Amino acid sequence: MRAGDGARSYAIGLDYGTASARAVAVDTETGAELATSVYPYPGGTGGVLADPADANLARQEPQDYVDALESTLAGVVAELAGQGALEEGSVVGIGVATTGSTPLPLDVAGRPLALDPQFADDPAAKAWLWKDHTSYAEAAEITALLEERDLPYLGYVGGTYSSEWFWAKILHCSRTAPDVFAAAASWCELSDLVPALATGAGLDMKRNACAAGHKAMFSHLWGGLPAASFLAELAPELADLRGRLYDDVQPASERAGLLRADLAARVGLDGREVAVAVGTFDAHAGAVAGGVRPGRLVKIMGTSTCDCTVTSETEPRPIPGVCGVVQDSVLPGLVGVEAGQSAVGDLFDWFTRTLAPAAFAGPDAHEKLSRAAEALPPGASGLVALDWNNGNRTVLVDPLLSGLIVGQTLATTPPEIYRALVEATAYGARVIVEQIEQYSLPIDDVVVSGSIAQSGLAMQVYADVLGRPVRLARSGNASAAGAAIFAAVAGGAHPDAERAQAAMGGVSEVVYRPRPDAVRAYERLYRLYTRLHDAFGRPGGELSGVMKELFEIRAGSFA
Amino acid sequence: MRAGDGARSYAIGLDYGTASARAVAVDTETGAELATSVYPYPGGTGGVLADPADANLARQEPQDYVDALESTLAGVVAELAGQGALEEGSVVGIGVATTGSTPLPLDVAGRPLALDPQFADDPAAKAWLWKDHTSYAEAAEITALLEERDLPYLGYVGGTYSSEWFWAKILHCSRTAPDVFAAAASWCELSDLVPALATGAGLDMKRNACAAGHKAMFSHLWGGLPAASFLAELAPELADLRGRLYDDVQPASERAGLLRADLAARVGLDGREVAVAVGTFDAHAGAVAGGVRPGRLVKIMGTSTCDCTVTSETEPRPIPGVCGVVQDSVLPGLVGVEAGQSAVGDLFDWFTRTLAPAAFAGPDAHEKLSRAAEALPPGASGLVALDWNNGNRTVLVDPLLSGLIVGQTLATTPPEIYRALVEATAYGARVIVEQIEQYSLPIDDVVVSGSIAQSGLAMQVYADVLGRPVRLARSGNASAAGAAIFAAVAGGAHPDAERAQAAMGGVSEVVYRPRPDAVRAYERLYRLYTRLHDAFGRPGGELSGVMKELFEIRAGSFA
Repeated sequence: MRAGDGARSYAIGLDYGTASARAVAVDTETGAELATSVYPYPGGTGGVLADPADANLARQEPQDYVDALESTLAGVVAELAGQGALEEGSVVGIGVATTGSTPLPLDVAGRPLALDPQFADDPAAKAWLWKDHTSYAEAAEITALLEERDLPYLGYVGGTYSSEWFWAKILHCSRTAPDVFAAAASWCELSDLVPALATGAGLDMKRNACAAGHKAMFSHLWGGLPAASFLAELAPELADLRGRLYDDVQPASERAGLLRADLAARVGLDGREVAVAVGTFDAHAGAVAGGVRPGRLVKIMGTSTCDCTVTSETEPRPIPGVCGVVQDSVLPGLVGVEAGQSAVGDLFDWFTRTLAPAAFAGPDAHEKLSRAAEALPPGASGLVALDWNNGNRTVLVDPLLSGLIVGQTLATTPPEIYRALVEATAYGARVIVEQIEQYSLPIDDVVVSGSIAQSGLAMQVYADVLGRPVRLARSGNASAAGAAIFAAVAGGAHPDAERAQAAMGGVSEVVYRPRPDAVRAYERLYRLYTRLHDAFGRPGGELSGVMKELFEIRAGSFA
Repeated sequence: MRAGDGARSYAIGLDYGTASARAVAVDTETGAELATSVYPYPGGTGGVLADPADANLARQEPQDYVDALESTLAGVVAELAGQGALEEGSVVGIGVATTGSTPLPLDVAGRPLALDPQFADDPAAKAWLWKDHTSYAEAAEITALLEERDLPYLGYVGGTYSSEWFWAKILHCSRTAPDVFAAAASWCELSDLVPALATGAGLDMKRNACAAGHKAMFSHLWGGLPAASFLAELAPELADLRGRLYDDVQPASERAGLLRADLAARVGLDGREVAVAVGTFDAHAGAVAGGVRPGRLVKIMGTSTCDCTVTSETEPRPIPGVCGVVQDSVLPGLVGVEAGQSAVGDLFDWFTRTLAPAAFAGPDAHEKLSRAAEALPPGASGLVALDWNNGNRTVLVDPLLSGLIVGQTLATTPPEIYRALVEATAYGARVIVEQIEQYSLPIDDVVVSGSIAQSGLAMQVYADVLGRPVRLARSGNASAAGAAIFAAVAGGAHPDAERAQAAMGGVSEVVYRPRPDAVRAYERLYRLYTRLHDAFGRPGGELSGVMKELFEIRAGSFA
């Protein structure tokens, strides 16, 4: 399986996150992580360019992406060299996982338009970070037009087009920054850009199936990107752009090209032939590292949560409310299924940051609250909450839902509320599992990676609420580790992703098992959660208008 | 109007609260409060005898009542003497307002049974403080039997008999402490006991219309106390006790008797003839001091809230869900109407004590939160809450309801939540006003006394939500001031309560007026509140079982 005769080989996984990029060098045989290098983006605050006048705006500086590539590669190569590892083996490949949908305009050379001095100060020429919501009106317009035209595209992306996604952002750019739009030779996702920067592919860059399928509504079911006639109804220039985008996509195990010789020299890989894999999204790569396979759901749990599984069905079938069902988007040859929750760690952070009294505050607020909350039997708080403080991504797909907590007495304590919020996210996770299962994809076990995996409280609650064992992913850098798995395939160290995954990824020995008493208590509480979920969240629910009217009143109060 | 020729006269109002008793000496002509004396009950914690094994138990030490009488009278008399006031005028009367329903067993001399050394250590022989809930099962039994027998009594006390009330407590005593019950020659309310202690009336004590009508279901509509046949169905010994209770009741402006000579001598009123008025409940006396009259609702707002108004209808008419509609219970000759909210100040205290982060905590937590909350326009929080953390007294009469808050985002702040809780209590207050108005008693303005009257935030929110001017009562000791008004009538300084009230009570110059923009915003929010109120709180509401099931699950979680 390994390159060379008995020699070791290494794959480098790159993870372009929201605040920084990270490279991890992984042994392709053992999965051991030998070296790590992190590059915090200098642009903006925490890597994000904001606009004080528009809370919806979130961009990134493409120059940071260029610099991160060289810096992190040089960092891990130097560390490998320092360990003497480069003498014992070779770097066979580089894989790329990034945030998304994070589209950006390109110039005729296939470089980010923002690198052109003419556009250096124009936010529209920057990368439109996943959490940029400036194009909410365009997203609604796309959804409405797709419904009106009865086009099938939305069925595979959850039923509602999001303001976070590719076409909405580009349409918004065409309307609000027409000079940028006109100057763009093409657009790509960050997950396409990084391999292109590494290989020097320019506009011939390979496009990844993951971003294309989940965000640009690309599918072979309808011959690729959405029809030009549909795009023209949104804006004639979008139909024109379609011809300058792409007709084909590749899974992340494919080789995008070889590392540019000049870059290889600068990062300490002079004269070596290093494969660069096609890109993918961070959560999807993390799922691969977590051992995703049919019947297993991998949850990447951080500020928000992304859930992935795969099915060996012959072609994608829509699952209502589930953000994406896309061929090859997780593992090549399988249909990827992606869902998510809009606030998980963010919800716990909101509570500790905003509502924790002195006794539970401070840098160890989560530990103190968790310790006290762990001592409570399930149901002892008398509370049930809805986990919608940042809206609901799956299965209601409604950003205008909000939080709710019910059952407070005059004796309700902060650990009780904290536990209720953890439980609420677990109930939300169960709704997703049940929705996927209802569409005939049984989920037998659950693997978690990301920062929340470190919370014993959360993991035990999830096991009890889901009624399934919850395992922890082996890697603490799951997205980078997943990118390294694809790098190993692209570099020839393994013949396919499944075998690379078996060698390099998978779960740790930690397992949280459902406790029968807790499972019983949570059955009752989950039924109460679903009553509230349906009453407040589903169109036609008894109280479905309440949260939206509160948003409306709030908006009006500042008018 | 005044006793003596041109000389001043004073009335002393006694207010027996939960933690202490207070006496206030008031000028009968001007209403000026000249002297105050407070006696914190030494018994128990904060004046309350608790049982660590039973959170429902709350009793008081009758000896504390005896000692408080002498101590507080002596205190105000000494203060009057020190001011030279006793030389310029005379103390014409003493009035009494107390908590209730706070029943206690009496010996054959009409003294509290607890003063007998044989019962000195028996909690059942103590006073059963208003917030004692040990008799919840008996209360439910009384309600059920009244419904089954289709008896009219409940209609005038809100439709549900409470565990806080007279018969439930005595029935519980008869079952759990039969020796105490057997030894009791009679039972009385604290509001009957204090005048009896002051006059030496013994078992011949006069009984007050307020406690009898609101708590013991006494009404001339059915010939006094509930029928012996009904009481016998609960327990034969209750029917027997009925004969040792009372056939008649008096309004608080009546004279109960004259201050005992020995007590007068000990408190510095040697040789003077001082009338003692019949007792009443603290909130009702407070309403009188606040200028209650037909069309005016007086709210005594502290940890919980008691609302009173009066109507000149010829006889009481039931108002569904309103705790009491009783002849003579507030002002003699008028029908008193009493409603209440179970948690107001307690709700705000719960938040500051439990959930306020360091920046908003400390002794001035309420001020800091109020200042920040006042800066928010109505509706700006996007929140609406239900004020049921301690159940709902009026109009749902359901102690098993609990709190709810909806609309939280990841940006929701403590002042926003604090304001939402203040608003929730104001919506609850509006439900009460609308229920009273629906039964043809228009409410034109609202007067507030009690600690919450000092909150400018709360008062403005109440004016805006109620759409009515909110005035503050003149006295900061409204219950004692109301008792002094009755003392002045009993002592002959005024011919009737209305004229005493006009001279001594009423409102201050502070008025909070509804602001039209805020009124409009709160109209919409109040509609959302009533949707939640009805969905969660009314039998048959879409989500009516949710809070009760949470209580059930909580109870089960400790089993």
